[in-house]
Amino acid sequence: MSPQPPSPTLFFETINAYQRTEALRSALELGLFTQLAAGPRTADEIAAAVNASPKGIRILADFLTIIGFLQKRETRYELTPDSALFLNGKSPAYLGGAVEFLLADDIRNCFQHLTEAVRKGGTAISDDGTVSYDNPVWVAFARAMGPLMFMPAQQLTALIGGDHNQPLRVLDVAAGHGLFGITVAQQYPKAHITALDWPNVLAVAEENAQRANLANRHTLLPGSAFEVDWGGPYDIVLLTNFLHHFDITTCEQLAAKAYAALAPGGRAMTLEFIPNADRITPPSTATFALTMLASTGKGDAYTFAEYESIFRKAGFGRSEHHALLPTNQQAVISTKSADA
Amino acid sequence: MSPQPPSPTLFFETINAYQRTEALRSALELGLFTQLAAGPRTADEIAAAVNASPKGIRILADFLTIIGFLQKRETRYELTPDSALFLNGKSPAYLGGAVEFLLADDIRNCFQHLTEAVRKGGTAISDDGTVSYDNPVWVAFARAMGPLMFMPAQQLTALIGGDHNQPLRVLDVAAGHGLFGITVAQQYPKAHITALDWPNVLAVAEENAQRANLANRHTLLPGSAFEVDWGGPYDIVLLTNFLHHFDITTCEQLAAKAYAALAPGGRAMTLEFIPNADRITPPSTATFALTMLASTGKGDAYTFAEYESIFRKAGFGRSEHHALLPTNQQAVISTKSADA
Repeated sequence: MSPQPPSPTLFFETINAYQRTEALRSALELGLFTQLAAGPRTADEIAAAVNASPKGIRILADFLTIIGFLQKRETRYELTPDSALFLNGKSPAYLGGAVEFLLADDIRNCFQHLTEAVRKGGTAISDDGTVSYDNPVWVAFARAMGPLMFMPAQQLTALIGGDHNQPLRVLDVAAGHGLFGITVAQQYPKAHITALDWPNVLAVAEENAQRANLANRHTLLPGSAFEVDWGGPYDIVLLTNFLHHFDITTCEQLAAKAYAALAPGGRAMTLEFIPNADRITPPSTATFALTMLASTGKGDAYTFAEYESIFRKAGFGRSEHHALLPTNQQAVISTKSADA
Repeated sequence: MSPQPPSPTLFFETINAYQRTEALRSALELGLFTQLAAGPRTADEIAAAVNASPKGIRILADFLTIIGFLQKRETRYELTPDSALFLNGKSPAYLGGAVEFLLADDIRNCFQHLTEAVRKGGTAISDDGTVSYDNPVWVAFARAMGPLMFMPAQQLTALIGGDHNQPLRVLDVAAGHGLFGITVAQQYPKAHITALDWPNVLAVAEENAQRANLANRHTLLPGSAFEVDWGGPYDIVLLTNFLHHFDITTCEQLAAKAYAALAPGGRAMTLEFIPNADRITPPSTATFALTMLASTGKGDAYTFAEYESIFRKAGFGRSEHHALLPTNQQAVISTKSADA
């Protein structure tokens, strides 16, 4: 193969990449995908249905076609299979609500100050960034991100194994939407979940537990994970999308709290974005580090070697690394010795 | 081939696409690519050189590697061939300055109101958007975008053809940085350029003409293209990246002004983003329509059929369509009959 001629294409595409974000957000705000769930439509037909300008819809729908969310046949637009599944507001797998968190003003603002964050080594918007006490962004998170956690929660729960009729005492640390603990409770009918989070966020987990008819097996433990007594003993401590917000020393303190709260033979189950040792693969996992740099004071996307060390220092004899394909997340299962 | 399983990957990548924009902007602001022009460096070495945090640089450089701007070998980062050519601040082909226009606050703000623009069929920020009289964004444009126009200007000039010693009277409408007229003057030593633009923008074209030692063949015609007398007769009227800001009726008025200002046999040379009739190819051309929707009251990316009609109504007997590969722009050459 001859070498490619020089091309500024990647530069232009990347400088303008933000336009893709805005186009997708606009389409969701307008309900364009939901409208197309009924079948192929022209720009004029869509415009009439969503109360927009035919020219505006034509240009937006062409752009969405170019970036892969629609197909165009002659003058009619139609959904791709992925758009039909994930972006139709009436689909049970609808993901569009995640925009309320992923594109929250607080998060976007962090990236507006990325250069300062690179200079400083952590978020430039405040000392703690989004990890400040009772930050309302976590209520948005809890409300918006539950549906995205369906698949990771299924996969993490599958790693518990054993008899599904065993009694399980489970602590769900920084429960947020509560979906991880709730999924365990759904699959282990004798499991009891204790959900720990700030009070404003925990209200969302409580709603979700009630909606799943699990309130009688779902206890609330309001407060900061750093300040409240975790209680116990537990068979499982869930640490899902939590440790990445902190530096390694803080992760070690949290791992030690998990160790102390676990019964002998119990397990800390960590769900995280864990890049390979090269920190550039898998791509959709490794890019997460930038979000931590932009939005937290000290967070990161740690490798398995780093997590293994964190849990070893806390007393765990053994940690295992699990991919959770096709999601872009991974799990670390750290076991407390049965004779501890 | 079996069908792909459903995947939310495109959704997540697109929602987070704005992070790519910010990462590239930060790297340019920090001079990271310029620093790496000297050879492979570790994150610590880059951080020391650009006065940033080693952790911040490590995360940013990993992200830039993932999105294709750097290569990583063990712990050292190095430039790709394209980054070395286009993003090293000391390269004559450096494109980074274009960020000052492409990511100007005025442009970004338009996309923050994209949903309203889709509803309205034009920019939501004002009646005219960026096309308001003496809008300072066009000074930023003129200063930032000259280097990007090197290749299109070479290619457009190549379409003039004929004896390079012929005298050419050229009107450069909405000259901006003036690079199109200046390139003609450089290649046709007997060409005389009249550059028309708002006074504040025209100052940039004047500077560029002086720097190219062409001031004696470069006359300034300050004012609005709609209000000033274009003078003439000219052999060539350049309409570069101008018509896309307006509706078709306005384009027809401008084409008529061009026709009136041309000598018999003269040519209007239009440089534009001209998508194919499907309006979704070529992709990097067709996406431009969204920028017009977001930032102008009535602009668009017109097809060749539309331009052909615009110039025909103005009196031009014949228009030709030219791709200008490898750029993402196209040209329309419209000829006034020799016996007109």
